[in-house]
Amino acid sequence: MTRLAIIGLGLMGGSIALALKQKSFDGHIIGYDAQAASLQAAIASHSIHEATSDMGTAVQKADVIIIAAPLTAYSTVFSIICSHLQPSAILTDVGSAKTSVIHLAQQALGDAFSRFVPGHPIAGMEKSGIQAANPHLFQDKLVVLTPAVQTDKEAIKIVTQLWEKLGACVEQMDARLHDKILAATSHLPQMLAYTYLQTLRTSQEFPQLLKYTGSGFKDFTRIAASNPALWAGIALNNRDALLQELHQFRQHLDELIENLSTENDQALQSSFTTAQLAHEKSRN
Amino acid sequence: MTRLAIIGLGLMGGSIALALKQKSFDGHIIGYDAQAASLQAAIASHSIHEATSDMGTAVQKADVIIIAAPLTAYSTVFSIICSHLQPSAILTDVGSAKTSVIHLAQQALGDAFSRFVPGHPIAGMEKSGIQAANPHLFQDKLVVLTPAVQTDKEAIKIVTQLWEKLGACVEQMDARLHDKILAATSHLPQMLAYTYLQTLRTSQEFPQLLKYTGSGFKDFTRIAASNPALWAGIALNNRDALLQELHQFRQHLDELIENLSTENDQALQSSFTTAQLAHEKSRN
Repeated sequence: MTRLAIIGLGLMGGSIALALKQKSFDGHIIGYDAQAASLQAAIASHSIHEATSDMGTAVQKADVIIIAAPLTAYSTVFSIICSHLQPSAILTDVGSAKTSVIHLAQQALGDAFSRFVPGHPIAGMEKSGIQAANPHLFQDKLVVLTPAVQTDKEAIKIVTQLWEKLGACVEQMDARLHDKILAATSHLPQMLAYTYLQTLRTSQEFPQLLKYTGSGFKDFTRIAASNPALWAGIALNNRDALLQELHQFRQHLDELIENLSTENDQALQSSFTTAQLAHEKSRN
Repeated sequence: MTRLAIIGLGLMGGSIALALKQKSFDGHIIGYDAQAASLQAAIASHSIHEATSDMGTAVQKADVIIIAAPLTAYSTVFSIICSHLQPSAILTDVGSAKTSVIHLAQQALGDAFSRFVPGHPIAGMEKSGIQAANPHLFQDKLVVLTPAVQTDKEAIKIVTQLWEKLGACVEQMDARLHDKILAATSHLPQMLAYTYLQTLRTSQEFPQLLKYTGSGFKDFTRIAASNPALWAGIALNNRDALLQELHQFRQHLDELIENLSTENDQALQSSFTTAQLAHEKSRN
């Protein structure tokens, strides 16, 4: 029987526990969280068998450990894990940035690094915390694993099967490429939504102007409801790739400002059309 | 019996016609469009009584004229209207920018300018054209009228009643304030969505990276499906207010880049929190 520890019972950890229960996982699930309320919620939903607020206890009992903590907590998490880890235990995580996580793991885990399978489910929402957990969160979603050259093949297989059990499709990718792609498809839009709302907030007409928003505004800003601390952690952990995207964006923004200033109708239409066609491609 | 002319049977004009029909408007509706297919679609839906591809014909028969053409066509539309207008006819429009429209109308309409009631329904969608028209588009939506000092009170009353009949709430506002607010709540996010997709389009990983997008991406980019020519017209017609918003945004973007470059966790969290709280306010 697999003994599975989930480190962190937020949206991700809580959803993994609920999905395992829903898919009739036949192992034993130990949930760790620093907050008693999260542990209680997981116990109340019968999605974990055992709850502990001591990470070491959870880790030392486990064959498979899923790190579902915020990226900013990883360095603490790895240091506790490495002193309680069973010799053959397998580790994985759900962090949105992978190069920095691999770097940390390599430094902290020693020999156990080869049994760490870095992972990232492309699934989430603007809500956070176990109250937003959902057993269907990973159904038909993509989970990207970014193993290093030394990562144990058997460990990759076990983690892959675990995600597949939860309804996800699993794909392997180079960690750097993952970080570059996610910077463009996820981290950049998150930064833009935040920055847009900051701009709105500093307007003289705030908050009166909120009355004059439509459905476009609502959808465009939905992700700005996301947890600021979590996202500061993601941004910092994928700093280089994200900065590159931000600079690219700023260059296009400067072109737009220039074209609008000079009333270059043709250039505006042409760039909007490029964008519209790219959007169309994303809908296929 | 009111004789109403709708100039332009796109999403807006087509929806007005459908809504009037649904609300059992007892007047006579004349639809104008340059495209035969749009006229045919309006006739086929029985939402207009008469179709014409000659704008002058539509105008000279009408007591009330609704301009529902793209902003870029306004200068042509006004010049045709002013040579066919009945002496007591009332005019209104649905354009997303108002200062520039008022300026044009003032130059083109002469005495008739006092019977022009500039208007803007805060309702729309990323789709355009009569095939996207919807009789419920204005239900419980806000319509902002931006009359000038010389605008006839009776004309304002008639246009107000017309929109209220279609289910909308009507409010009056200074045209400059309207343009400033809409630049912030609607035109800026549209520019950002387009610019974001342009950035994505120029990535080396395009289009492969589209596979790694989630529901956040989908909502954030929905408005990028909007018509490029229409939006170039809106941007140019609200150039000054929009440029101001773009510069404000750019300043906040530069701060973000700076904070991320220097790994200023606290500053990042603080600005994301400002944004999250502003977003929360928009959901109330």
